Amino acid sequence: MFSVVADGSITTPKGFKAGGLHCGLKKTTRNDLGAIVCEVPAAAAGVYTTNVFQAAPLQVTRESIGAGGVLRAVLVNSGNANACTGKQGDADAYEMRARFAESIGVSADHVAVASTGVIGELLKMDKVRSGIDELPSRLEGSREGADGFCQAILTTDLVQKMVCVELELDGQRIHVAGAAKGSGMIHPNMATMLGFVTTDAAIGSEALQQLLRQATDLTFNMITVDGDTSTNDMLVAMASGLAGNRELTPQHEGWAAFAAAVRYVCEVLAKAIARDGEGATKLVEVQVNGAVSDDSAQAIAKTVIGSSLVKSAVFGADANWGRIIAAVGRAGQPVNPETVDIRLGDILTLEQSRPVVFDEEIALEYLKGDTVVIRVDLHNGDGKATAWGCDLTYDYVRINAAYRT
Amino acid sequence: MFSVVADGSITTPKGFKAGGLHCGLKKTTRNDLGAIVCEVPAAAAGVYTTNVFQAAPLQVTRESIGAGGVLRAVLVNSGNANACTGKQGDADAYEMRARFAESIGVSADHVAVASTGVIGELLKMDKVRSGIDELPSRLEGSREGADGFCQAILTTDLVQKMVCVELELDGQRIHVAGAAKGSGMIHPNMATMLGFVTTDAAIGSEALQQLLRQATDLTFNMITVDGDTSTNDMLVAMASGLAGNRELTPQHEGWAAFAAAVRYVCEVLAKAIARDGEGATKLVEVQVNGAVSDDSAQAIAKTVIGSSLVKSAVFGADANWGRIIAAVGRAGQPVNPETVDIRLGDILTLEQSRPVVFDEEIALEYLKGDTVVIRVDLHNGDGKATAWGCDLTYDYVRINAAYRT
Repeated sequence: MFSVVADGSITTPKGFKAGGLHCGLKKTTRNDLGAIVCEVPAAAAGVYTTNVFQAAPLQVTRESIGAGGVLRAVLVNSGNANACTGKQGDADAYEMRARFAESIGVSADHVAVASTGVIGELLKMDKVRSGIDELPSRLEGSREGADGFCQAILTTDLVQKMVCVELELDGQRIHVAGAAKGSGMIHPNMATMLGFVTTDAAIGSEALQQLLRQATDLTFNMITVDGDTSTNDMLVAMASGLAGNRELTPQHEGWAAFAAAVRYVCEVLAKAIARDGEGATKLVEVQVNGAVSDDSAQAIAKTVIGSSLVKSAVFGADANWGRIIAAVGRAGQPVNPETVDIRLGDILTLEQSRPVVFDEEIALEYLKGDTVVIRVDLHNGDGKATAWGCDLTYDYVRINAAYRT
Repeated sequence: MFSVVADGSITTPKGFKAGGLHCGLKKTTRNDLGAIVCEVPAAAAGVYTTNVFQAAPLQVTRESIGAGGVLRAVLVNSGNANACTGKQGDADAYEMRARFAESIGVSADHVAVASTGVIGELLKMDKVRSGIDELPSRLEGSREGADGFCQAILTTDLVQKMVCVELELDGQRIHVAGAAKGSGMIHPNMATMLGFVTTDAAIGSEALQQLLRQATDLTFNMITVDGDTSTNDMLVAMASGLAGNRELTPQHEGWAAFAAAVRYVCEVLAKAIARDGEGATKLVEVQVNGAVSDDSAQAIAKTVIGSSLVKSAVFGADANWGRIIAAVGRAGQPVNPETVDIRLGDILTLEQSRPVVFDEEIALEYLKGDTVVIRVDLHNGDGKATAWGCDLTYDYVRINAAYRT
């Protein structure tokens, strides 16, 4: 239905430029201010943290997208989350929006703002202002521009996270691309998850919102535990419409294909965030099948992926199915205690809730790999879900024992 | 109302003997089989894991207490949890009950059984049988007997956990004592939480059950996260009635005092379990005040105490109130985002949801202590709750990366 574009990026969809620079919010020389700009008004959608405490930029972005479902740009800084910063924080976020809008000659409510980094500290606005004024000259429709943006949104992330796919609709080539950051995993860190999706498909903002919400529930929301969210989590999508397809609606015959592309982009980014979790050495994928419903399967998958005992065992390459079944049993979901199978990859360790003799050496080899799949079959219905996470390591503790200092 | 009995133990209440021995289930020479026996039929109550997967001994104990609310003894082994062991596991648990009942000359349904240790392996019943036959000769009404029992219930615990208090009711001296084990903390380990309460108070089994349930909700259940429970968690209480008070009922003028004593015993044990959490260097106490209800405060306190980010920060002595407020904000409870105060001990770090300048050196000194109190005031109602946990350390990861192997 769609294929991955080698070396594709968020500037591959028609109409987008991106870039970044170092304005001085981070102590290193890495970029800390970036933007994606669309040359035409783009249909826009956003998904935000459910945390009671929401950082100032979320309010600004919500207001911009809410005004008419249209964006021309999103401006992001790292190094400071502008959260718990009171009225001055609100004023700073609005000033960022207005100044960048002016610098690229668009209306203020066509600009979204996102921030990530430490919280409770006011932004150094003199540095932000200088950066904003210089940023338009750094925007490029090339891979370099996209890379500059990607670097600007990182905090403790070790690698950039970007993906682009293409598909054909109405005889036109359509691109869907995305970039993300996020590094804390067990509970997403103040470091925050930020995601940005660009596409040149023609689609209205309401339809885009619907797709973005669906994709989020199955991807980004499946790498978090118990609905954990930081004060700054945000996912923004922009559709330039320049690909020339007929406007996508649920009635369009290409709707499912486009939805699959959006979901794939989100899934790649979500898994990349999980794999790059703080201190992580492995990506862990939990597949739950045979639950009474998909919702039930999701709850069980999240409980297993969130278990510190399971995560520690994976780090230690210990085929500890006992911790997996204990997590399944405390998820608060209907489970038949007599019919559970558990596999590590293809290795059956528990069948009909009873231990199976398996080759410990083969299991050890499997668990030492960089991706571990835990399969739980409940034989209790048709519900299924997948969740992603990472192992719990010494480095997680080291990183988080002294993040602020 | 009550006072702690120095050097008191589970054999201090009149009528109780206890003891333990090494029968060979553990690889070390530490005791792995123990019992508490009452010389008269004791009113009994039990609280069990809510995990869907329940180990064989829980079924046996539930049946014994359910038969008439009376116990003469509780038999416990460590080294093997007898969980996920199928019909043979059930048969083994019943055999343990019958054999021990016979060895001390009581009815089988007056004996409770508890197990803790690895799961999915059958008990070495030859060793268990020999141990059971020898155990009656090891029972003593002394501190030594209590210590022998306490050692027999430990797994990765570093210290024994026991407490005894006394109070006066109807002119009689009443004792309430308890012993517990438990060591995994973030999510209670397969190592399991086991608790045993003895008292010489006269009280019916229904009234005792009521008190035990209430105390559990405010103590043992406040050291677990998201209702986490292992397959073997169990708390059993026995009341010999030999103190000579009038039977305790909610109408008795001493009811509240006795309830407070039971709760205190449970709280001491719960905090001891938290402090001895795997790899822990500190006890962490989270006090939530000003929530819309006690239930809401409990949910918030548990979310904060369960946050790996908060726990890592405490380990690193990092005064990271940002992680605390983020946990408060994602607890799914009504919170006014503008009115939250956060203190570390007496150090105010956030007031009305805004950062307060505090002396970092003083905060560092405080956080280096062996007990850290996190106080969250929501100014949103009268609900309050306290939860206990520990820090997340390198040693937690080390212990749990290779528990089974």
